[in-house]
Amino acid sequence: MAGNDLLSDYLGAAVEAAQKAGEVIRKGFYQTKHVEHKGQFIGEETTAACGASELTDEPTWIVDPLDGTTNFVHGFPFVCISIGLTIGKVPTVGVVYNPIMEELFTGVQGKGAYLNGNPIKASSQSELVKCLLATEAGTKRDKSTLDASTNRIKSLLFKVRSVRMSGSCALNLCGIACGRLDLFYETGFGGPWDVAGGAVIVKEAGGLVYDPSGKDFDITSQRVAASNPLVKDAFVELLQQTE
Amino acid sequence: MAGNDLLSDYLGAAVEAAQKAGEVIRKGFYQTKHVEHKGQFIGEETTAACGASELTDEPTWIVDPLDGTTNFVHGFPFVCISIGLTIGKVPTVGVVYNPIMEELFTGVQGKGAYLNGNPIKASSQSELVKCLLATEAGTKRDKSTLDASTNRIKSLLFKVRSVRMSGSCALNLCGIACGRLDLFYETGFGGPWDVAGGAVIVKEAGGLVYDPSGKDFDITSQRVAASNPLVKDAFVELLQQTE
Repeated sequence: MAGNDLLSDYLGAAVEAAQKAGEVIRKGFYQTKHVEHKGQFIGEETTAACGASELTDEPTWIVDPLDGTTNFVHGFPFVCISIGLTIGKVPTVGVVYNPIMEELFTGVQGKGAYLNGNPIKASSQSELVKCLLATEAGTKRDKSTLDASTNRIKSLLFKVRSVRMSGSCALNLCGIACGRLDLFYETGFGGPWDVAGGAVIVKEAGGLVYDPSGKDFDITSQRVAASNPLVKDAFVELLQQTE
Repeated sequence: MAGNDLLSDYLGAAVEAAQKAGEVIRKGFYQTKHVEHKGQFIGEETTAACGASELTDEPTWIVDPLDGTTNFVHGFPFVCISIGLTIGKVPTVGVVYNPIMEELFTGVQGKGAYLNGNPIKASSQSELVKCLLATEAGTKRDKSTLDASTNRIKSLLFKVRSVRMSGSCALNLCGIACGRLDLFYETGFGGPWDVAGGAVIVKEAGGLVYDPSGKDFDITSQRVAASNPLVKDAFVELLQQTE
């Protein structure tokens, strides 16, 4: 476990990187554009290697330089840079920055979660029927995936207030962290870069990040659910009924 | 038809009202709140009467002081004031203001559409498969409505890039107007106050507002679709297949 000073240094470096990347995203946001390829990188701190590599216990930066690619292409304002640092595979420092809405979410293990420097916390909603749920349609368009995902959304809609789909996994996690959203799940997303930054922010805001089955969250599984602790059990039960 | 000077005066009055209402919404946005009731009003300019009244050919203000009520309650940043002026039942002046994201959309018949004073235009996307679609889950939770709406979304997802649900009909229309979104439809929403402001903004941005059947838009029908002209026919065909 890294010391507090070191974690602060990591946070500072991540915020600086996010803000620099944010300038680039902001400049490009309003231009017509063609995005052909999206690169993420996972780099151990000592190597700064580009290209995906297996997650180890070493302190590891997991970066999505642009989460919400479709939104970026269309100019829909839910885009962000997501930066997470795992230590022992545990998300320990998280920075998620939306440069269009100028919202900087940060979290450091044991140090709380913040939006633009102000403390944030997950919602205190305890009734599913009053919960605002976020999920995504995903990118797969085969019939069985779409049948499953839309049937699940339909089943969930009987039980919650409404659903939002805004196109950024990292910002959905931050929505849980600041209480804008009460429930979030997504499966089949890109990879750990979508969740590494947001996961620590949710936890430090008093929320929970877990597998949709209710089991422990695995950052490499492409499966995530998040909520406050009060509705976790009911949400997991609902997700299992609709799987 | 009112003269240009008079329309400018109407626009100025609507912008001023939206900004004042926006201050109230902005102050309340980050507070915990309980909203029990939502009031809209339709008032002929000479009466300023509160309470719903039938739409006539007279110049008529149609106001939604808070579109995106669920978002407001939860602190999800897609909320707006929507103000429309109909003359001869035709939306002629439109103001939609999101005080959280500080986006002011305006449109006056024959005078163009603007976002924070800068001209906007609908997207130039001509291929459905590259289109970003917006719709909403609505508020009805009976089985037949949910079956129909989720089946439709599933069918559409086979044909478009992705779907966004952000919880504000007026802002979805403005999304079409500024090209963030390519396709939008919604049925069964609250009433003309959800569309009166956005409709003129879409049209003045070079977009089209129409009934999901492809017929003429009827502001009182609680049915709306919008897109650029290039994809209208293909979108209507798709909507009819999935109705």
